[in-house]
Amino acid sequence: MTSQRRENLNIVPNGTSWTSVDEALEHLRLSLKPILDFKIINVSDSLDYILYEDIFAKRSNPPVANTAVDGFGFAHSSMKNHDVKLNLCLDRIAAGDSYQGTVPKGSAIKILTGAELPKGVDTVVLQEEVTIKDEKIIFNVDIKRGENTRKVGEDIEKGKCVLIEGTRIQAQDIALLIATGMDHIKVYLPLKIGILSTGNELIQKVSNQDLNKTLDANRPMLMNIVKKWGYSPIDLGNAHDDKEEIKTKLNIASNTCDIIFTSGGASTGEEDYVARLLKSDGNLYNWRIAMKPGRPLAIAKWNNTPVIGLPGNPVAAFVCTIIFGKPICGLLSGEGWLEPNSFKIPAAFTKNKKIGRREYLRARVKNGKAEIFHSEGSGRISSLSWADGLVELQEETAKVNLGDLVKYMPFGGIF
Amino acid sequence: MTSQRRENLNIVPNGTSWTSVDEALEHLRLSLKPILDFKIINVSDSLDYILYEDIFAKRSNPPVANTAVDGFGFAHSSMKNHDVKLNLCLDRIAAGDSYQGTVPKGSAIKILTGAELPKGVDTVVLQEEVTIKDEKIIFNVDIKRGENTRKVGEDIEKGKCVLIEGTRIQAQDIALLIATGMDHIKVYLPLKIGILSTGNELIQKVSNQDLNKTLDANRPMLMNIVKKWGYSPIDLGNAHDDKEEIKTKLNIASNTCDIIFTSGGASTGEEDYVARLLKSDGNLYNWRIAMKPGRPLAIAKWNNTPVIGLPGNPVAAFVCTIIFGKPICGLLSGEGWLEPNSFKIPAAFTKNKKIGRREYLRARVKNGKAEIFHSEGSGRISSLSWADGLVELQEETAKVNLGDLVKYMPFGGIF
Repeated sequence: MTSQRRENLNIVPNGTSWTSVDEALEHLRLSLKPILDFKIINVSDSLDYILYEDIFAKRSNPPVANTAVDGFGFAHSSMKNHDVKLNLCLDRIAAGDSYQGTVPKGSAIKILTGAELPKGVDTVVLQEEVTIKDEKIIFNVDIKRGENTRKVGEDIEKGKCVLIEGTRIQAQDIALLIATGMDHIKVYLPLKIGILSTGNELIQKVSNQDLNKTLDANRPMLMNIVKKWGYSPIDLGNAHDDKEEIKTKLNIASNTCDIIFTSGGASTGEEDYVARLLKSDGNLYNWRIAMKPGRPLAIAKWNNTPVIGLPGNPVAAFVCTIIFGKPICGLLSGEGWLEPNSFKIPAAFTKNKKIGRREYLRARVKNGKAEIFHSEGSGRISSLSWADGLVELQEETAKVNLGDLVKYMPFGGIF
Repeated sequence: MTSQRRENLNIVPNGTSWTSVDEALEHLRLSLKPILDFKIINVSDSLDYILYEDIFAKRSNPPVANTAVDGFGFAHSSMKNHDVKLNLCLDRIAAGDSYQGTVPKGSAIKILTGAELPKGVDTVVLQEEVTIKDEKIIFNVDIKRGENTRKVGEDIEKGKCVLIEGTRIQAQDIALLIATGMDHIKVYLPLKIGILSTGNELIQKVSNQDLNKTLDANRPMLMNIVKKWGYSPIDLGNAHDDKEEIKTKLNIASNTCDIIFTSGGASTGEEDYVARLLKSDGNLYNWRIAMKPGRPLAIAKWNNTPVIGLPGNPVAAFVCTIIFGKPICGLLSGEGWLEPNSFKIPAAFTKNKKIGRREYLRARVKNGKAEIFHSEGSGRISSLSWADGLVELQEETAKVNLGDLVKYMPFGGIF
């Protein structure tokens, strides 16, 4: 059997049943529930928190009818024909002024952008469109009732729903919440995500004795992915390939974390203690997921806390965290099941692919087309820095030709 | 003159010279310089910081040649023909083991994923492809020298450049930096960005006396945009429409901030004290920028500190912050001039547009097409929560038809 022939074999070995990415995701989506802890915080400090309840406007935006321009306000009914001449009031109303008077019919008042329309005014003419002569303003402009004004509540009316439960709060949402009178809001507590690396080969610092050991890149990477997503990473450190040590770590972590990400030991090898432990004691979904990279992925519950057993390989761990970790965390966090944004763009590459498994390629966009990294080796951490997104190839795809439209998921929509 | 006729006028009024968005951006790009303050931090804590210098690998990744699979390692030169029979060593090498022996020609040793290849081994056969009998392993597989192994430094070789100065550090970059032996790195100090709101109409809290006043939504919005970008927002509070008050605030802020964002008072009206002050004392670039929303935008230097005088309107302030603030801050921060990612997608709307100005529409993607918000009113803060990006229409565009390709910039690539 040649290497080429091996590569062409159907990926499903005898006696093993494979689970597709979509089946696994659908199962998880239906079987997990949000964690319902909340707190009350100041709106200004709520960036990236998730709303715990629908928010209804306490105040209309804008709160009062006002002028959108610098100009002269008057009653539209004062206009008899196109040649308009109105008496000019002596006062001037600026934004924030509380003008108590009434502008009589046939008169106009100077009014500056953002100022409340006084009684008697429903329309504004731009100041550059009028002539002032003998304490009168003269203009010849066809103006509709209400022109150059903003109605009270034209953006949001008091009592109307502003944002719904599950919204991840962006900077612009903060503006909206403040404008509609909110100062404190109820938000979900950020998910507490435990991060554990396993493996005898792992070290934290280089020394001359450890030239053949691996610096633990996964744990800081995962801690920072989780941080970028607005959750609270909890550092569970490293564990050796030792069943009791891993068990103790999981027991402690499952008391304090909402979900646990492990990396390493997730496959079916002799030293894959995480998978063996989750299988014996942790209600492992006994899945072999038909995807590349990331085949060894163990998803289980430990004392009722979800555990995502990621591959030890940083590239595979990264891809599995995006594809499985992001929607799972979204659901648990109250934000809801999250699917990455994607775009169909032409491939700047060709590729033969096995039918029956989903593949994720490290990609970047150049001149509107998706390029892929020169090597698919999952040890190539540098490919993750090179890429600006992933290309997802479906199970049924056997070949990608130059110019074929492929599904590109930018990291910008993932992190 | 009818409203329709006014709308159709060329936007350039007599006696005013307009600056295009691109001209203004190009001028700023050439006239600003990065702030060169730095600090040294732990790699694990470096998310969203910007590298101050190129980073060269202190260690190769992988640090030693190792096996990519669980299998049996041997010297490729031991293979005489396709029917291979090798003596099986008693030892077993797992990841992280330091095996001191040499595997003799004609022998093989059990080796687990990630383990260093011992002396005498250059090739690995998968364990499921061999038969073990009488302390020998037997297989009939065409295997290339080096198959199933990873070369030392095949990702990054010691001494090679890993990431370049100006890189904004992502979670995956942290993995790469750690894997190549970095523990501390030099990064630019995050930009200190002062945020000031101006206007007599602004209040911080609603009271019954202030029904016609405006809650200050801009300052918290801008503080959080800046925070989301990884910079340090500095709250300069509010100022009334008072020249001396604004002057005092700018004097203090220019001593502590790298750049100042103001909102309000940026136009040419009577109460536009920010613009008037920047013009008289602040080296204002006297631009009227041909864009919508966001026409009143003042860009100046105050005691040599750049000041971006944003419109008071939250929608216009938001758009100007994205279009001008993001690249300017990128340049000052050391990351470099930043242009938002964009995609060409079909329009799900029609629109007539004035030639000669650039327009930014609040948009969102549905079924691969760009929809726009039902109102272009710049008081509609809710449109910013509704949208997931902006559509940019070029100066020369006069009409957008259903299905025309438009430039869509997702917020995901902006924040």
